[in-house]
Amino acid sequence: MLSQRNPQLNANGELIHLLSIEGLPRAILTHILDTAASFVSVSDREVKKVPLLRGKSVFNLFFENSTRTRTTFDIAAKRLSADVFTLDIGRSSTAKGESLLDTVDNLSAMAADLFVVRHSQSGAPYLIAQHVAPHVHVVNAGDGRHAHPTQAMLDMYTIRHYKQDFSNLTVAIVGDVLHSRVARSDIHALTTLGAAEVRVVGPRTLVPGDMADMGVRVFHDLEEGIRGCDVIIMLRLQNERMTGALLPSSQEYFKSFGLTEDKLRLAKPDAIVMHPGPINRGVEIDSAVVDGPQAVILSQVTFGIAVRMAVMSIVAGNVA
Amino acid sequence: MLSQRNPQLNANGELIHLLSIEGLPRAILTHILDTAASFVSVSDREVKKVPLLRGKSVFNLFFENSTRTRTTFDIAAKRLSADVFTLDIGRSSTAKGESLLDTVDNLSAMAADLFVVRHSQSGAPYLIAQHVAPHVHVVNAGDGRHAHPTQAMLDMYTIRHYKQDFSNLTVAIVGDVLHSRVARSDIHALTTLGAAEVRVVGPRTLVPGDMADMGVRVFHDLEEGIRGCDVIIMLRLQNERMTGALLPSSQEYFKSFGLTEDKLRLAKPDAIVMHPGPINRGVEIDSAVVDGPQAVILSQVTFGIAVRMAVMSIVAGNVA
Amino acid sequence: MLSQRNPQLNANGELIHLLSIEGLPRAILTHILDTAASFVSVSDREVKKVPLLRGKSVFNLFFENSTRTRTTFDIAAKRLSADVFTLDIGRSSTAKGESLLDTVDNLSAMAADLFVVRHSQSGAPYLIAQHVAPHVHVVNAGDGRHAHPTQAMLDMYTIRHYKQDFSNLTVAIVGDVLHSRVARSDIHALTTLGAAEVRVVGPRTLVPGDMADMGVRVFHDLEEGIRGCDVIIMLRLQNERMTGALLPSSQEYFKSFGLTEDKLRLAKPDAIVMHPGPINRGVEIDSAVVDGPQAVILSQVTFGIAVRMAVMSIVAGNVA
Repeated sequence: MLSQRNPQLNANGELIHLLSIEGLPRAILTHILDTAASFVSVSDREVKKVPLLRGKSVFNLFFENSTRTRTTFDIAAKRLSADVFTLDIGRSSTAKGESLLDTVDNLSAMAADLFVVRHSQSGAPYLIAQHVAPHVHVVNAGDGRHAHPTQAMLDMYTIRHYKQDFSNLTVAIVGDVLHSRVARSDIHALTTLGAAEVRVVGPRTLVPGDMADMGVRVFHDLEEGIRGCDVIIMLRLQNERMTGALLPSSQEYFKSFGLTEDKLRLAKPDAIVMHPGPINRGVEIDSAVVDGPQAVILSQVTFGIAVRMAVMSIVAGNVA
Repeated sequence: MLSQRNPQLNANGELIHLLSIEGLPRAILTHILDTAASFVSVSDREVKKVPLLRGKSVFNLFFENSTRTRTTFDIAAKRLSADVFTLDIGRSSTAKGESLLDTVDNLSAMAADLFVVRHSQSGAPYLIAQHVAPHVHVVNAGDGRHAHPTQAMLDMYTIRHYKQDFSNLTVAIVGDVLHSRVARSDIHALTTLGAAEVRVVGPRTLVPGDMADMGVRVFHDLEEGIRGCDVIIMLRLQNERMTGALLPSSQEYFKSFGLTEDKLRLAKPDAIVMHPGPINRGVEIDSAVVDGPQAVILSQVTFGIAVRMAVMSIVAGNVA
Repeated sequence: MLSQRNPQLNANGELIHLLSIEGLPRAILTHILDTAASFVSVSDREVKKVPLLRGKSVFNLFFENSTRTRTTFDIAAKRLSADVFTLDIGRSSTAKGESLLDTVDNLSAMAADLFVVRHSQSGAPYLIAQHVAPHVHVVNAGDGRHAHPTQAMLDMYTIRHYKQDFSNLTVAIVGDVLHSRVARSDIHALTTLGAAEVRVVGPRTLVPGDMADMGVRVFHDLEEGIRGCDVIIMLRLQNERMTGALLPSSQEYFKSFGLTEDKLRLAKPDAIVMHPGPINRGVEIDSAVVDGPQAVILSQVTFGIAVRMAVMSIVAGNVA
């Protein structure tokens, strides 16, 4: 019996779309990280450009608004010398009732090479990837609560940069795991790359029940959860969670699950602190930690450009 | 007595603006189509760019929102290597009470080479063209109910691609002709290029009374109107028409004027079906037709890029 | 005792940011004007581009909306061959509660070279300039009521172009001086460049009390104020002033302080009339003057591109 092929890989096992970390072999993840390493220096050059995607058309399809993530893909694509077209979908034909796939068909007919897709519905980038022609590529820039694979890869790049090897690491992911596509993608990436232990830490209302099935240890106490860790990944707490029944108040949350310098001392002395941004200072993390020596949050941003350049150049170089 | 010169042509009869198909000689239309043919292959290249407008400044002035049309001009201009500046006019100085011509004067003073103008008022692109300096060019991207000449030219390109010669063709334009600048421009283009018969088909409330003067045959019955046709151009039905007194409901409209596979069989067996998009599936056209073998709607989109590259490069090469 | 160094200059006295005209030595202003002169011709070329900022990343950070000013910086940066990223801050992370400096840190981590900042709060560009790394540059595109230094420099360029020497000039700045960052920056520039006399002219409610301290003469009567002037700089009257208690009505304002052809005859016969735009015809200035031979308003726009190219290329060439 043949297993069904991962839609992200072609018959030669090469990456043609990046939709999710789940199901990707370790060699692919390592290839992305190694390629990104070669791009980190590009942003330090006088002329921050390489001609790898010159004359290619990259379409930023942001069905869900995110200036920050859109900008990082815009920068990455332009540093690869691509032409970038950003579609403000809220105001476009979709608003006139055109279907997602009709929009994609239209842009494909304009000779698109690569779609960067953010969508509030889980699975939308898969739908697009299965629909487009063999020479067109899709990169998931965040879909619903499902996946945010480039964020996971920049997190992995950052961890590898500071810690070299994954095999001895204990990594804690802290906060609103329930609503976080970053958490899901990070867990898959860490597991695939062989992290010794992955923990999720958060209140019962914000940690889904199936976490143990993903091979992680669950903690509902921050001090327990980060004790002895090498890496702490703090998640952003969406303000809108506060208005619901899931949480009492941001002050209460900070008291229980906010990362302070005191609590950070429970982790290993050389532990690094990460955050996907944008940060809520004083909600999920104290300002002193954000601005302290163990935070590597701005390095994540820098590496994020290189990782997105790597992903776009890798998928654009392969054919379905 | 000298005839008044067409404001789109210079003293040598060369195209300096594209404002309307009306009044353009057949040789100009054929020149646009022939030039577009040379650009169709550019979008298939590894590097989808030619340097014809390198260092030129193209301004997208969209006083009326249209992500789709704006994107096609953006793509076309960038594939010609121009610098493109898009002005979201709703939020710009015009909102502060500046007049249309003051806005244009200001942008001209920034050394604009070409304005792509969409405006809800018929004639706005003419006003701009008459106002700008001799080296500045204007392309109408749709003005009121008046004209949409690049849409008409991409429609002509598509028809010529599939049918080669216009002289034996019967072409039906179906739907909301009353509000359609596409219909008006298509009729002028088809007449100029020598189509054997042009028909308009639609309910009495959506077909203007002066159609016969334009040299077309009018039908108020879809089956009659498309019988024996070579080309069917379906028009988009604006949803807002439904709320007015012009139409009963979209279901009623579909029953009478929606193109289904059954009805399509009344046309010639090799008839092609066109639509300017975005499509309302199940309102003016059935999904089975959109996705069927006779639809050439996505080819229209592809050819649209080449036609817009042709128009911009032609006008930019001539001086008033 | 060492004087505190101007944050816009490095230890060698070279310009690294342009935040305000105040405190800049005459030599710096003259250097900007001389550099701009070399860029004026670039916009007349077939290929309107020079490679001075090729591969650099310029970020337009417009916390306050201004399509016109944003577009001029976009044009200037692209004519220097930079990659330009425009952030619509109203919809970005700042809206999610991220602080100004966290936003700047994030963009800096993406390897920004130059920030163009417009902000409703006076001093915001200073805050950013003091925060960024030594190789990152900030250009103030207007902050609160404080300063608009590139507008002042394009005004100076225009005056020098038409009048050559500042030392014999009487310059009147007319209108809503109270709310005008343009007026403040123009006064500093004119004083530094040695204009013989600078006047401000406006109703008592729109001229601040400290004007005499800035070395200018104050007039509350238009005819008195512009009599014998070489240069008249009209300020835009914000419509929102009318609804407050500061002014009776736009008709009343025009009667007292609107510049008409009759009143203009009180100035020198070769006086030039300037305006930063967008113009309110019939409010602060009569259409006949705007369209008349003494108005140099569109020259200001043209020179504005060259001046912004000059400022960006100068600051980008120096290190803190």
